[in-house]
Amino acid sequence: MSAIAFIGLGQMGAPMASNLLKQGHQLQVFDVNPEAAQALVAKGAQAATTPADAAIDAEFVITMLPNGDLVRAVLFGENGVCQRLSREALVIDMSTIHPLQTDKLIAEMAERGFSMMDVPVGRTSDHAIAGTLLLLAGGTPSQVERATPVLMAMGSELINAGGPGMGIRVKLINNYMSIALNALSAEAAVLCEALGLSFDVALKVMSGTPAGKGHFTTSWPNKVLKGDLSPAFMIDLAHKDLGIALDVANQLHVPMPLGAASREVYNQARAAGRGREDWTAILEQVRASAGLNHTR
Amino acid sequence: MSAIAFIGLGQMGAPMASNLLKQGHQLQVFDVNPEAAQALVAKGAQAATTPADAAIDAEFVITMLPNGDLVRAVLFGENGVCQRLSREALVIDMSTIHPLQTDKLIAEMAERGFSMMDVPVGRTSDHAIAGTLLLLAGGTPSQVERATPVLMAMGSELINAGGPGMGIRVKLINNYMSIALNALSAEAAVLCEALGLSFDVALKVMSGTPAGKGHFTTSWPNKVLKGDLSPAFMIDLAHKDLGIALDVANQLHVPMPLGAASREVYNQARAAGRGREDWTAILEQVRASAGLNHTR
Amino acid sequence: MSAIAFIGLGQMGAPMASNLLKQGHQLQVFDVNPEAAQALVAKGAQAATTPADAAIDAEFVITMLPNGDLVRAVLFGENGVCQRLSREALVIDMSTIHPLQTDKLIAEMAERGFSMMDVPVGRTSDHAIAGTLLLLAGGTPSQVERATPVLMAMGSELINAGGPGMGIRVKLINNYMSIALNALSAEAAVLCEALGLSFDVALKVMSGTPAGKGHFTTSWPNKVLKGDLSPAFMIDLAHKDLGIALDVANQLHVPMPLGAASREVYNQARAAGRGREDWTAILEQVRASAGLNHTR
Amino acid sequence: MSAIAFIGLGQMGAPMASNLLKQGHQLQVFDVNPEAAQALVAKGAQAATTPADAAIDAEFVITMLPNGDLVRAVLFGENGVCQRLSREALVIDMSTIHPLQTDKLIAEMAERGFSMMDVPVGRTSDHAIAGTLLLLAGGTPSQVERATPVLMAMGSELINAGGPGMGIRVKLINNYMSIALNALSAEAAVLCEALGLSFDVALKVMSGTPAGKGHFTTSWPNKVLKGDLSPAFMIDLAHKDLGIALDVANQLHVPMPLGAASREVYNQARAAGRGREDWTAILEQVRASAGLNHTR
Repeated sequence: MSAIAFIGLGQMGAPMASNLLKQGHQLQVFDVNPEAAQALVAKGAQAATTPADAAIDAEFVITMLPNGDLVRAVLFGENGVCQRLSREALVIDMSTIHPLQTDKLIAEMAERGFSMMDVPVGRTSDHAIAGTLLLLAGGTPSQVERATPVLMAMGSELINAGGPGMGIRVKLINNYMSIALNALSAEAAVLCEALGLSFDVALKVMSGTPAGKGHFTTSWPNKVLKGDLSPAFMIDLAHKDLGIALDVANQLHVPMPLGAASREVYNQARAAGRGREDWTAILEQVRASAGLNHTR
Repeated sequence: MSAIAFIGLGQMGAPMASNLLKQGHQLQVFDVNPEAAQALVAKGAQAATTPADAAIDAEFVITMLPNGDLVRAVLFGENGVCQRLSREALVIDMSTIHPLQTDKLIAEMAERGFSMMDVPVGRTSDHAIAGTLLLLAGGTPSQVERATPVLMAMGSELINAGGPGMGIRVKLINNYMSIALNALSAEAAVLCEALGLSFDVALKVMSGTPAGKGHFTTSWPNKVLKGDLSPAFMIDLAHKDLGIALDVANQLHVPMPLGAASREVYNQARAAGRGREDWTAILEQVRASAGLNHTR
Repeated sequence: MSAIAFIGLGQMGAPMASNLLKQGHQLQVFDVNPEAAQALVAKGAQAATTPADAAIDAEFVITMLPNGDLVRAVLFGENGVCQRLSREALVIDMSTIHPLQTDKLIAEMAERGFSMMDVPVGRTSDHAIAGTLLLLAGGTPSQVERATPVLMAMGSELINAGGPGMGIRVKLINNYMSIALNALSAEAAVLCEALGLSFDVALKVMSGTPAGKGHFTTSWPNKVLKGDLSPAFMIDLAHKDLGIALDVANQLHVPMPLGAASREVYNQARAAGRGREDWTAILEQVRASAGLNHTR
Repeated sequence: MSAIAFIGLGQMGAPMASNLLKQGHQLQVFDVNPEAAQALVAKGAQAATTPADAAIDAEFVITMLPNGDLVRAVLFGENGVCQRLSREALVIDMSTIHPLQTDKLIAEMAERGFSMMDVPVGRTSDHAIAGTLLLLAGGTPSQVERATPVLMAMGSELINAGGPGMGIRVKLINNYMSIALNALSAEAAVLCEALGLSFDVALKVMSGTPAGKGHFTTSWPNKVLKGDLSPAFMIDLAHKDLGIALDVANQLHVPMPLGAASREVYNQARAAGRGREDWTAILEQVRASAGLNHTR
């Protein structure tokens, strides 16, 4: 069992710390709200008066905070962790913050001789309580190996994201995709309603197509991801269908800003000479617009 | 077995007609390209010289054409189907056209005493050849019942879309969702690449979340679709994460027009007082922006 | 004075026809609404029972109709103009329709041996009454010359748009720019309000900059339009300022979809290596995204 | 003449400081680059070794720095201005930074008993050299009055923006409008080129309409700004014209993301029941989407 400093005892942090205690770890906890710390003391933790205080003799320091500026303050600020941190300890930031800030924090910690990794979590506060969080581990192989027993006290699944800063990156990608997809899904559902079509019928149809299953594992693997852009469904036709959908939506007064933006992406793909390529070539189009060269 | 007129023998129509012949139906076929018709004659069809000619004595008239203007011309134009169509016959338009045009065609046919339904198809030309198309049947219950034996000669799955014009509607929704999602997926994948993150890792994570599984069957059913907007994940937080993703993307030169548009949808949701509602309340936000009232 | 057929006597057409009468022209008028025609008869016109009827002996046929399908029906339909049109006559379509439809109509008229030009109008129905419309003349030099005396009975300013179909094109560009600019202006004004800034102060400042004066005659002529992309104001800085504006707008709950879309255009310009070019290089960026080559 | 500390001697700051010297002010200058300071010493300034050092005995402290974090560091950091600043002095931040950061800096200065105002500048480095900058003064009336003689040594026009933080706000609005308008103008110009229309003809037409003159002083004052939404040009028609423009642009492969976004704004206006209102009602629509109530 390990000596762990746990900083940040909010809706997620408190149950996570609680699960560490249950597994027999020794915890020194800190939160700006002293009551939050006291609740953990009742479960066997020791309360620290500052982040620096919590870090004394800790093998692991876990931070679970609302944003990167707070992580920075907890590490480097007055009475911050670094003032009492052992160079043998491993700092695990489990907060969801800006990835480029994560990179900078890890680099600054390294300059001072400290070891830090990023392990943001997936799922909800219910999973935090149950100890079944998804752990997205960014770090060197040895950091991940060392942290795993501690982390698995809080979660049921650990994904090694492939290196320092990669945990927070995969969290960002996942959240981007799911949050934007939510808005796109709403456009489709509202157009469905405006068309007087049963949503159950639409779901039934979409459950068998990329509309419901996504493209990553259906249309892409055998086409664009293999470099095969011969058309199963041409960009020209996809563009035409988007035009019809937007025309209908504008007649029915359904604003579809994501749909309108996507039509212009297909428009640009056609301008780039991709009209007769497979619709999955949109990936290559977006890569080109990002200035990425055409080989992978 | 039935007497069927089949009009439009392109990449999809030709194998569909072929499968009808294999099942023993009698076909009179027409295409603007006489060679296309001759290929079917070799398989047992009779070639007609005009759509009107094809329609003589037909129990069913199937149209499979590139756009709605052509369907209109084939039905109502010079030497069009209507000139020789029996009032007992059923016209089945299997083309993918503008839904409001479908409505108009069905209404105009009805005015003249003719029966017409819409049955666009899903899947690819390979499925057309194999007779395994997805059939999206729009029509009255009796139309769907009557057409089913004929339709099932061309496809392996028939979904009753719920009424006249609903076949073409569900096709539109499905295509809208899948085509726009393709562009959104490309943004996420390119951001992933620009972040130096393994796409396989991203896929692994997303395969267990709405990012990969969609929202329709994961986050929505127990929340917004039930009218429960208490936050599992707040719109305020989703908006914040989108802001981080766009900030990173703009630092890394990854244009994300759909992401940018979606951020403004969340922005508007917050302006409407929904910041502390569940992120699935975006559906209600989009409904409101479409002028739909708040009850379902 | 000329013999003129005038077809379409709505809010704009009626006063335009009236002004032609005042100048001494002989008018045969037609409208689907017979009362509209009678009002002109009271002013000296002759009422025709069909478009064909109106066209008899006409030197000029003027159409002023709500959309291109109606223009097509009036020209080519049953009892349409072409049935009685002299090959010496000049058809002037003054409607605002789809430019590619205009091209097609002119071409089809030419195939039949008829001469047609496009002269949509600018300004309002008040100007139609006063005879002070802006006339946007598309046509060959001889068409424009021939039509000018007739046109100037209805307007006070005639701009030769440079050839057949160019009248309707310049109308489209003008309307596109002014209508989209209206939405962009609203975003700026609402951000101003949300920031608690006096709109009068904002106007005062913008009246001296491209924000108020536009770019066409201020920032562009000496830079991008001359091929000089050395930075007076760098794209990188413009992109940064847009990012600040959107960040503020998102904090203040002001949705700015046009601003968000424009940031991604600058983002793409930076991805294309234009970050240190002058901001007017956005024109070259948009040209490139439209597949236009880099020389003018 | 005054004793002035000038901090930040870049492309803008150096000539501004130079002009202060020419007017006879006494300058203590600081820049992270000592050479930049030496160039001013040659013109009569005294070089300071830190911002604190520069602030000794200063009546005015002027900061001209690349971003708000630097302004913060210069004021509050180690050897920062506040360590030696007199409570009688006036700090004038002329940098272009985030307005909400400006507010915070002014508030924190006030908490410490210091007086600070924001006066960002308009125009270019050429104007900085000539002493003809546009000065956008944010501050209390007495701050503005006190600073004016000093400011006018650097610029030729001073606009009182109406209070603390308003200088930086009006700069933001102006830059937002001009930068986004640049992208919109490019869309119109490229559509013009793709249509084969002379840009000179388009300019000639637009120079007389809101497309070229903007809406703030043309279409808005007598309509929406007066509360008159009776239609001179209906939102329904504006929406229709946008649809035509986008249809043409998509046929011609001209991507117009701002145009596409604006169409959805009009779409939403129609959904909100504004279709038959004047197009300037878009301002009210955007206000409503920002959650601003309908009275001004």
